[in-house]
Amino acid sequence: MSGIEKLKQSIIENFGTPCPVIDLDIVEKNISRAQKLCDEKGLLNRPHIKTHKSPVLAKMQIASGAKGITCQKLGEAEVMVDAGITDIVIATNLLGASRSGRLAALQKRVGLKVCADNPISIGAYSDAAHAAERSLDVMIECDTGQKRAGVESPAEVMTLAQIIKDDPMLNFVGLLFYPPQDGWVRTQEFWNQTKAGLARLGLSAKIVSTGGTPNFRNIGQLDGATEHRAGTCIFNDLMTINAGVAGLEDCAFQVFTSVVSRGGAGRGILDAGSKTLTSDQFGLEGFGRLVEHPDAVIEKFAEEHGFLNLSRCKNALQVGDIVRVIPNHVCVAVNMVDQLVAVRGNEIVDVIPVAARGKLV
Amino acid sequence: MSGIEKLKQSIIENFGTPCPVIDLDIVEKNISRAQKLCDEKGLLNRPHIKTHKSPVLAKMQIASGAKGITCQKLGEAEVMVDAGITDIVIATNLLGASRSGRLAALQKRVGLKVCADNPISIGAYSDAAHAAERSLDVMIECDTGQKRAGVESPAEVMTLAQIIKDDPMLNFVGLLFYPPQDGWVRTQEFWNQTKAGLARLGLSAKIVSTGGTPNFRNIGQLDGATEHRAGTCIFNDLMTINAGVAGLEDCAFQVFTSVVSRGGAGRGILDAGSKTLTSDQFGLEGFGRLVEHPDAVIEKFAEEHGFLNLSRCKNALQVGDIVRVIPNHVCVAVNMVDQLVAVRGNEIVDVIPVAARGKLV
Repeated sequence: MSGIEKLKQSIIENFGTPCPVIDLDIVEKNISRAQKLCDEKGLLNRPHIKTHKSPVLAKMQIASGAKGITCQKLGEAEVMVDAGITDIVIATNLLGASRSGRLAALQKRVGLKVCADNPISIGAYSDAAHAAERSLDVMIECDTGQKRAGVESPAEVMTLAQIIKDDPMLNFVGLLFYPPQDGWVRTQEFWNQTKAGLARLGLSAKIVSTGGTPNFRNIGQLDGATEHRAGTCIFNDLMTINAGVAGLEDCAFQVFTSVVSRGGAGRGILDAGSKTLTSDQFGLEGFGRLVEHPDAVIEKFAEEHGFLNLSRCKNALQVGDIVRVIPNHVCVAVNMVDQLVAVRGNEIVDVIPVAARGKLV
Repeated sequence: MSGIEKLKQSIIENFGTPCPVIDLDIVEKNISRAQKLCDEKGLLNRPHIKTHKSPVLAKMQIASGAKGITCQKLGEAEVMVDAGITDIVIATNLLGASRSGRLAALQKRVGLKVCADNPISIGAYSDAAHAAERSLDVMIECDTGQKRAGVESPAEVMTLAQIIKDDPMLNFVGLLFYPPQDGWVRTQEFWNQTKAGLARLGLSAKIVSTGGTPNFRNIGQLDGATEHRAGTCIFNDLMTINAGVAGLEDCAFQVFTSVVSRGGAGRGILDAGSKTLTSDQFGLEGFGRLVEHPDAVIEKFAEEHGFLNLSRCKNALQVGDIVRVIPNHVCVAVNMVDQLVAVRGNEIVDVIPVAARGKLV
């Protein structure tokens, strides 16, 4: 039996299927690559932990040179603080966490950096800082074309920066950007104007953050940026391959899944569905790539079944075969599971809890 | 402040946002309705717990008259057995659970009913029954047009029934159907032929199960059916509304979510994204319905953000507003969260753990 066949047997006998697996050799290469990209451009590296949600993996990133981490939820930051990580940016407007008292409780334990794009969020942060009796660092989220959250003009940054400046419990510390692929020139103009405006207020941005694994193509293009935050690059997926910033060999996360039925001719059923791989599609064909059968298409999902179209598939799949699936979007797939089985090559070496899984607030 | 505004304040202060909420008054009505539908047609009710994944709610269904429950994963059944529920059908080919030894371990504790559509699954069940030293009840899954798992002809049922009959550790107990909306006549023909064939083998089906909340329109149409299994009807969602078997007033599950940013004109951002409501779309417009603003469209998701198109929205949304979202597909949304906040009307009355959440195997 080949090494990979032995691993498949070992996975199903020890964990059953479907089973989420990461290869730590690839994870380490991916962590080093992100660090090197930042180092080469003179940027601090602040990986976004939304992809792996694991203090174990966050600490590997910090050991490799990361300045700190980025979280998207207060609940994620709580888990990371519990594990001893303290340099944390939370990259979103935190309203639920502010109004439930959880932001204040965590801020009492460790000085956080939070983000806002509106006066309501800033007011909530002020309340939290007062409750924590500790001043809070605030960044302003800026949108230069993604049409996500974020203020859309330097003038709006000025308005918010003034509010932060006027609040004795808040410290203005910088800006958060996620430039679109074709928006780096526009982002430069936005930053240049903002920098000048901030200077007129007597402020400067200690942190100017750019974001995204797809932006590995553009990293370092913003003159004035101080750090980059990328999440998906630790594992990669079909989305980052499609974006041209990773290859199949860089994909560290795979779901081992059994063929549980053939259904009818030209069809097959996997035991992994939307409750394992999720319905995220990103305009890609199908819902994941079978490593062993790239010509098979996961055409749709039921909750616990993947529906294979095998009409273009040269090699037959049999019930009981175990195949490996690389998901379209690894960040949401990891968020479905409580633990990741860690391998190196074909050996199982560890089980890593997804400790911050499902932190809604 | 109105009752619902008070509830929203109470939710965000106690739990933050986004927060999944179920109304137990509606849950109870939905449970009674499903029971009554089955009772009227002389069918046993065996609700599918994949929707709620909670022993608390499963016991409410049993108290209302359900014969037992249906699970989709061995791990779900383990949680239900731990809670004292013993009459369980697991409605899928269980390969991972068989080969990892977990099926045998649970079968040792309680006699399960499992499903197969191929000889490999049946062989795995025989191994599990031997390991458990307890014979295992097996149903055959049949496909009459959904093109999911399931054998596609009565002749295939015969082949599998003979294998089960010949195995001293397995008992043939019946058939599992999920007829398509327009496939009930075909299902009747399939069953009639199968029944005759089984008689020639000296077998009869103690259980003939039909499935699905959308099939509430057709329940009772299969002469010979003994029970029905439906899951989504306990909560309902935009899918069951779209299928014509529920109204908005029957939707027991809502996600309370904050408007955290307005982005730009005609846009808005919710703090619930694909990691809360999931990307399941089912051909519906958008990714959920805002109770307060049905003319707002959740156009797309980031992981933790819902992107609102407000261009058709008559009433403005402000940052800090809390709105309620009914998801496209409640079964996958519930599977994202560890607990459900239970209300009756505008009062919080309980917190119910989603104890079988994320059971992959």
